[in-house]
Amino acid sequence: MNLKAYLKERKELVEGELTRLMPHGGAYPESVHRAMHHAVFAGGKRLRPILLLATAEAISGEIPPGAMEVACALECVHSYSLVHDDLPSMDNDELRRGKPTVWKEFGEATAVLAGDALLTVAFNIIAEAATRDVELSDRLLLCVQELATAAGTFGMIGGQVVDVESEGQEIDSNKLYYIHTHKTGALIRSAARMGAVLAKTDYATLNSATRYSESLGLAFQIVDDILDVQGDEEKLGKPVGSDQERNKSTYPSLHGIKRSRELAEERIEMALKEAKRLAHPEVLLALAEFVTSRDH
Amino acid sequence: MNLKAYLKERKELVEGELTRLMPHGGAYPESVHRAMHHAVFAGGKRLRPILLLATAEAISGEIPPGAMEVACALECVHSYSLVHDDLPSMDNDELRRGKPTVWKEFGEATAVLAGDALLTVAFNIIAEAATRDVELSDRLLLCVQELATAAGTFGMIGGQVVDVESEGQEIDSNKLYYIHTHKTGALIRSAARMGAVLAKTDYATLNSATRYSESLGLAFQIVDDILDVQGDEEKLGKPVGSDQERNKSTYPSLHGIKRSRELAEERIEMALKEAKRLAHPEVLLALAEFVTSRDH
Repeated sequence: MNLKAYLKERKELVEGELTRLMPHGGAYPESVHRAMHHAVFAGGKRLRPILLLATAEAISGEIPPGAMEVACALECVHSYSLVHDDLPSMDNDELRRGKPTVWKEFGEATAVLAGDALLTVAFNIIAEAATRDVELSDRLLLCVQELATAAGTFGMIGGQVVDVESEGQEIDSNKLYYIHTHKTGALIRSAARMGAVLAKTDYATLNSATRYSESLGLAFQIVDDILDVQGDEEKLGKPVGSDQERNKSTYPSLHGIKRSRELAEERIEMALKEAKRLAHPEVLLALAEFVTSRDH
Repeated sequence: MNLKAYLKERKELVEGELTRLMPHGGAYPESVHRAMHHAVFAGGKRLRPILLLATAEAISGEIPPGAMEVACALECVHSYSLVHDDLPSMDNDELRRGKPTVWKEFGEATAVLAGDALLTVAFNIIAEAATRDVELSDRLLLCVQELATAAGTFGMIGGQVVDVESEGQEIDSNKLYYIHTHKTGALIRSAARMGAVLAKTDYATLNSATRYSESLGLAFQIVDDILDVQGDEEKLGKPVGSDQERNKSTYPSLHGIKRSRELAEERIEMALKEAKRLAHPEVLLALAEFVTSRDH
């Protein structure tokens, strides 16, 4: 399959739905809605929603009802986390993908509130999907639970807390594993699990989807760490060496580049094995192979 | 009825359930969980969850399944909003109810994350209530929608945005009405509406509960503005005159004390009228009368 064309088409599909499902950027009060749009339409790859849709399709052969809404909700949660991570009291980043971050463009108070609003609207989008089909209620409520758990203190927020508290400190590989599997891994895992839930899967298949996404997420993060050492600034769209500069522990700094590559490849093997248990695995296989070969 | 004893008993009931439903304060990562407990167990009156339970009981004569969980979720959302409102980039408050605010005690990054976590866990608590009874799914999903709408940019966050942007400016009575009905009114309204939904009410009764809570919320806020001018600092536990000091437009500053009192009483009359349409209105009547007579 042509993964590049597939990703481009899916990115456009997701962005169209996001435009439909989010409050209008000109709605009152304008500042917060403009800030939300600035955050969401900032050129992201939409990997989480694409993974959700692809997992559902790998199981059931189609995009099931509710999947598009839950995929967009997930992207809103991801966007909120970036808005709050960039705040001066957190990572203090002024640029993201070459544009001013939300707090830099709209001020700190609006950035806090726009992040809060993106998290809130995510749950609204899921709940409203049931108005189209009341039989979806059970599965959508499972998605609310899955997303809130993945985004909470035993998931993404937990990872962010430990990451913030580890700043400037040497950490061991257990803690780095905790940060990677929580800060970024939890949402990626929830993408696959929510896709599986909406595809009305059995327990064994849900487990395969879960393990696929856990392996994919970790491999993705290890490759991210490697690219920060060896990447091409132009392709990445951000400076390399920033982890080392901040004295941040990473897979390469703890395990060396060679061993990090091996670890990423082991995880991809595990992901491929799990994907093959699903009925229509082509896209998930291509996504896993893309993770190790990517240069941005 | 003895409202004071009732409120005390209900406050203890809600706090017991909050302790049960929230993540443990010693769970890893500790800082964020301790900060969440600091925020939630800071001596609040629990008016929103109490109103939710009282509305459900006024309709069905009992606390229906799921109501306790949704009531606690609502209190988590209220607590998160206070944590973020107190941040240096927002109201920059160092004390709340005589104790250090979350950012003052735990640092700004942890306060942002603890607020995010309280908002997230609220939706988790609602979703998990369905695991006890799958027949609740429809109503719980309506509560997710109601709460997310009330807490979002067309509700509480919208009110907070306009309030922040109006700081130091004279505003007219329309804008003040918008701020009051959104910043505080929206969650109070959602308390009554979610209570009614869980009590399996009909549309006319839901409307009465809605109008009751809209009137109650506005009266509550007008009295709050009056107490900031005429209140007793000791009973209030906070300094009076702070609105005037900040040059903040309020009901007394726009309409005068006498007219403000009249407006509050008009709203209470409307609330009483709506409450009387419900099957067991005693508590809601007493709550409405308490709002105008309160001195703290």
